[in-house]
Parts: sequence; C-alpha cells; structure tokens
Amino acid sequence: MTDTGFVRPVYRDAPGSPIRELKRYTELPGMISLAGGYPAAELMDTAGIQAVLRGFDDAALAGALAYDATDGHAPLREALAALSTSRGLASATADVLVLTGSQQGIDLIARTVLRPGDVVLVEAPTYPAALSAFRLAGARVIEVAGDEDGLRIDHLATALAEHRPRLLYLVPNFGNPSARVLAESRRRQVLELAVRHDCLILEDDPYGDIWFDAPPPPALYSLRDTVDGGAQHCVYLGSLSKTLAPGLRLGWMLGPAAIRRACVLAKQVDDLHTSTLTQALAARYLNEGRFAAHLPRLRSAYGARGRALSDALTQALDDRLVFAAPRGGMFLWARLRDDTADTSAWLQKAIAQQVLFVPGSAFFVGGGASPWLRLSFASWDAEGLREGALRLGRSLMADG
Amino acid sequence: MTDTGFVRPVYRDAPGSPIRELKRYTELPGMISLAGGYPAAELMDTAGIQAVLRGFDDAALAGALAYDATDGHAPLREALAALSTSRGLASATADVLVLTGSQQGIDLIARTVLRPGDVVLVEAPTYPAALSAFRLAGARVIEVAGDEDGLRIDHLATALAEHRPRLLYLVPNFGNPSARVLAESRRRQVLELAVRHDCLILEDDPYGDIWFDAPPPPALYSLRDTVDGGAQHCVYLGSLSKTLAPGLRLGWMLGPAAIRRACVLAKQVDDLHTSTLTQALAARYLNEGRFAAHLPRLRSAYGARGRALSDALTQALDDRLVFAAPRGGMFLWARLRDDTADTSAWLQKAIAQQVLFVPGSAFFVGGGASPWLRLSFASWDAEGLREGALRLGRSLMADG
Repeated sequence: MTDTGFVRPVYRDAPGSPIRELKRYTELPGMISLAGGYPAAELMDTAGIQAVLRGFDDAALAGALAYDATDGHAPLREALAALSTSRGLASATADVLVLTGSQQGIDLIARTVLRPGDVVLVEAPTYPAALSAFRLAGARVIEVAGDEDGLRIDHLATALAEHRPRLLYLVPNFGNPSARVLAESRRRQVLELAVRHDCLILEDDPYGDIWFDAPPPPALYSLRDTVDGGAQHCVYLGSLSKTLAPGLRLGWMLGPAAIRRACVLAKQVDDLHTSTLTQALAARYLNEGRFAAHLPRLRSAYGARGRALSDALTQALDDRLVFAAPRGGMFLWARLRDDTADTSAWLQKAIAQQVLFVPGSAFFVGGGASPWLRLSFASWDAEGLREGALRLGRSLMADG
Repeated sequence: MTDTGFVRPVYRDAPGSPIRELKRYTELPGMISLAGGYPAAELMDTAGIQAVLRGFDDAALAGALAYDATDGHAPLREALAALSTSRGLASATADVLVLTGSQQGIDLIARTVLRPGDVVLVEAPTYPAALSAFRLAGARVIEVAGDEDGLRIDHLATALAEHRPRLLYLVPNFGNPSARVLAESRRRQVLELAVRHDCLILEDDPYGDIWFDAPPPPALYSLRDTVDGGAQHCVYLGSLSKTLAPGLRLGWMLGPAAIRRACVLAKQVDDLHTSTLTQALAARYLNEGRFAAHLPRLRSAYGARGRALSDALTQALDDRLVFAAPRGGMFLWARLRDDTADTSAWLQKAIAQQVLFVPGSAFFVGGGASPWLRLSFASWDAEGLREGALRLGRSLMADG
C-alpha cells in the first residue's frame, strides 16, 4: 500500500488551489501582484497593537496563556457583542461564538449541518475556500447567478424550488471576488425565500466594515426578526482579519442557539478553543477604542487605492476591460469585453510583463474558460497600482 | 421547524462532556479541584514569554500579524523539526505541519482518514476529546485493554484481526488519564502489528516531555524506519500546550507526506493557518534556548507534586485506593479496592467535602459505573494536594 492508501478519496482527489499555485510567482523580484487577497501590512495599526501588547503585565499575560472556554474569551465575546450590536446585529455576549478566523465558521457549519449529497447554493462567482469546505463535506454545490446588485432573486427562487438546498452561502458586502453589494431590497427577499424553502442562510461578512463612501445596507441577520422564522434560518460570520490583523485568526459567529451549540461541540474536537492570547489582545484593542479610531483611516486608504486602480485601468486598458468601480472591500472584478476570451491564457502574458491577477475560473464551480479576472488593490499604493495597470495594458496588447 | 432542524443527528445527540459538567463546581470558593487537566499558571515561564514578546519590534510584529502558510510559520517549523530530531524523531523542516493545538491533529486525521463506519481502536481508558472526534467522524470506537505497561499486545492482536480497524489511537507516554507508559518492548510490537494489519497509528504525545526521573522510551514514530512499511503507518502529534502554554494553541504533526498533504487541505478550509503571532512567539522562545532551560524546572516541579499527591493519598486513604505513583505527566489514575464501587457516586460526597476528581467512566467508551478515578496534581502545591487527599479520605469514610 502506498502512503496515500489511508487518505479518503475526497481529499486525495481534491484539486490544488489555483490561487495558491500563483504564489510561486508573487515573490519573483519586480513582480506586481494584484492576485493576493491580503490586507496591506502598512495599513495595519501595528503601533496600536504594539501598545496593547505592551500593556499586558505578567499577571494579565499569565491569564492570556491559559486554557479558555470553547465559545470564547469572555471579554472578547462581550466586545464583539457590542460591536455587532453597533452594526445593527443586536446580540448579547452569550450569543457570540469566537472563531479561529471566520473561515472556521464556514467549516463548522459545513460539518454540523451538511450531510453527504446535500445541496449548497452559492453566488456565482464565490469565495473558493468556501467551495472547498462544502465539497469536502460531501455537498453538491450549485451556483446562482447575480448581477451588479448581487444575487438575482428570480434565479434564487428557481434554484430553491428545483434543488431543495440545505444551505445558501452569501457574501452580501463587497464579496470576494465580485466586490458587489447585495441590494437592500433584495436582502429581505432572500431571507423570505430561504425561510419559505427551509434553507439555512450562511451570511459571511469579512469586508462589511471596509466601505468607502457609504456603509452597506443592513445585514440579513439584522433583519431576522422582521420575517417570521427568519431568526431560525440565518447564521452570521464576522471577521477581524481584514480590519485588525489576519495573523491573529479571529472571527465570530452569531446564529440560532442550537446551531451554535453544535458548532461548539465541533470546535471542541477541532481546536478546543481559539488562542487566548490573540483573543485577549483583540478584546483590549476593541475596548480601548482603537478599532473605532482605526476603521476610518482604513476605509479612506483602501478607498483611495480602489479609485487609483479603477482610474488607472480605465486609462491603460481603455474599453477592453469592463468593470464597476469598487465601493468597498479589497477587490476589483472585471471582465474582458470579448466574452469568448479566457483570462487564464492572458495570465501567462501578464506574468511575462511582471504583473499578476487571478483568472476568473478560480471563482466558479465548474472552473473552465472565463473572461473574468480578480484584481486586488489592497497591497499597493497608487503608484504601484498605476504601474500594474500599465503592465496589464501592455500584456493585453501582446495578447491581441 | 425548530432551530435544531438543521443540525445533523450526530451533533444533535452528542452527549455533554462529563468533565465540562464538573466546571461549575471548580470555581466554588474553597473547592480543591483535582479534576482539571490544566497546566499550573505559576509553573509557566510567564516572565520568559513576556521577555520574548517585548523583543518584537514594530517590523517583527507586523510580520507576525500577517497571513502565513497553511503548513506553518517557517521559523517555527524549523524549530519544531530540530526539537523533534533532538527527541529521536528525525525530521526536516518540510516534514512539520503546525497545528492549532495537537487536538487539531486528532481531528484532521479523523476527517481525512476515517469513513463512516470505520473502526478506530483506542486504549481503555483514553482521552475523551479523541473519542468525540472519532465519533463525530462517524467511526465505531473499540477499546483495547491495557495493564501497567500500557496496551496489552495480545488484546491488540485480537482486536486488529477481529475488527480490521483503520486507525489505532495511542498516548504512549504518561497518558491521559492512565499516566501509563507503553513499555519499550511493546512499542516495536505495536508498530509491527499495525503494519501487518494495515492500520494507521496515531501517536499522540502531549506529555512526553514531562518525565520525572527518566525520559520515556523512544516514540513509535522514531522506530518507523526499523519496521518495513512502518513509516507509512505512523503519524505523530506533538504539543506545546502542557510545556509552554495552552493558550497559544500550538501543536505539530509528523507523518507520511500524503497524509500531511490531505491534512493541509483540511486545515485550509478549517482555519487557513494557525495564528502567526503565537507561532512567531513560540519560534523565538524555542530558538532563544528558553524552552530547553524551562523543561528541567517543569519536570522537577511536577515531579514533586506527583510524589506529594501519591504520598498524601497513601497516608489519607491507606489501602482503600490502588494506584501506581506517576512517573510523568499531570495525572494520577487510581481505583477503589472495591471493584464493584462506582466513583460517580463517591463524587457527590467528595463535592460536599470540597474536593473534585473525574470519575473513571468519562474515559471509557461505554461510560457506566467504574471504580476508577482521575486525579490531577498539576494545579496545586504540596499543601493543597495534602488537604485534597484528606478531604478525599473524609468523603470516602462518609461513603462507607
């Protein structure tokens, strides 16, 4: 028996991540990578986090090095409940389940809710690591198409009736990769349809706090009590990875008590609990008012970068690229005007010009040729983004 | 539909942890809890960890706040490879998969290897959160009895032939709860039998570094190349929770490349990666020689506590309790001389005397009445342990 004999087929046959395969190019000297989904190091509040860390005396540090409860470090649960409530997601401390990054929430829901063969509906395009979580849980993933205002309600209604899904996965605010915002009028409709078809909504919201000119509409979870049965059909995931720091691995879940209880059981066997140290650090950061002070700076900086990339692309690629200027988040989602073109082929020419993007095929269930591409503006300043756009333009000319 | 309608039956019907149910008693004023499996806060090297934290300048901190690779922070992987090699577990940096606590390793193996209905062999008694992980993965868990020298080889051979298990879970060094050490002569036999029956060994070793008078025998994983096929049939889990700090949530996996690759896929959808900050902290702590300096102090302190509890029990309970003095780890495993007695019934009287232990039933697959109990000596000094033993004695007299 080879050493793969013990690995279950679903893991043995899992495809490599196309985004991870780009990683070997990102570190080449001179490369401008617009492929990564990483918050910019220079936009993190490192000094503020440093100040909070220095504030831990030995007694506080000893507490932060000890085991803690599976559902979370009490001060962080309290701070996240207050943060959620301030965003319209009225929550008590006991309602908060702290996660080792919001990714863990996707996985805990997949583990506790999905049975092999269950159908999961996702937006097209969608976040690839969510697709992986659902597939590894044995689910069948079905796409629902959207438009500039997010998920199309008519397509959703058809898919709910036809496929009887158990779960609907959504990133309603500045989604990865689409950067779209689900229109306010559609949010209640999605909730009503999900209740009618007894489908659980998993609302993933890592980007909601990074809006540029105006905050996004109320979360679906905040509408849960306005629709009969809504509260039993909606789970919300928040994240501190894009706004505080990804390396802390901190997120949180709000949702029906029975589902959270099941997720606590799953988390007990998964990692027992999230690091006490990173939780205690985040609790102090939030409680000292640093997060509230940091967010406006972050919004302004990412907003400037989003506009810089948008303007530079318009100038460098003229009308060969079609896109909406991002209103928040970290991504610009664009497509080649020629609908038959494949951005995977273009990527090879872009690499030769020392610029990287993620071909759209990574974000669709079927993969395959796609005229779409995802560009991240998070990691470069305006000058870098302009140079990146120029290189994209040159590589596309080489392509034509 | 109630809000439990979405939860899979295996999570809906999962029993509560009997150890967690004791938690409400542990914080009662005046209680001496010998129930917890927690490292003592005053025995952690808080000052050393504080010094390492203070050593992070802003640039280093910014790095420790960023995303990192799923298989781990490179400096920590390198340090853990060196640590493993120094323990006889020859390993390269690329062989190390960093875990969010070694608990995550149990879960990743359960997810990537076990199919519903697969049989997992465990020692009787065994670690309850491993039982939960295997059960939630849909496995059937079968116990193999041991004696003072750990797993009985004759029973193991029978169970392998009869049940054709996919996995054998073992804590060979100072196991929780039994505190037993698998005899050196049996280690190679276990490996040979596992290979012959094509059963994967999961060797969990959170306590191996906490030996009192002499280190435990070589790990099964260190024997992997001495048995034909051994390397393909052995996964090793290490932990920093009992020796450095549990709140950092750090462990690591060594094992066949194909199994580690599957675990990386599972970890990508689980938590993307372990906290960069806690990994960077541990890497510096190890590389500055602090860990090597700390371990002798820890062994000496726990050794003194183990002897103190052992002596105090002999004095206070005379011959009503049967046990071996612990040679390492954090636990003393004892049974009532009266084999028909049930320590769950005794526990109620112990609580009245303000002392807590964990009844043995928590550590067996079937649960049910048991004359066994687990006592932790980790969290109390000699005086507290003596008082705890006196209270146990009084509560047992009240029982008779």
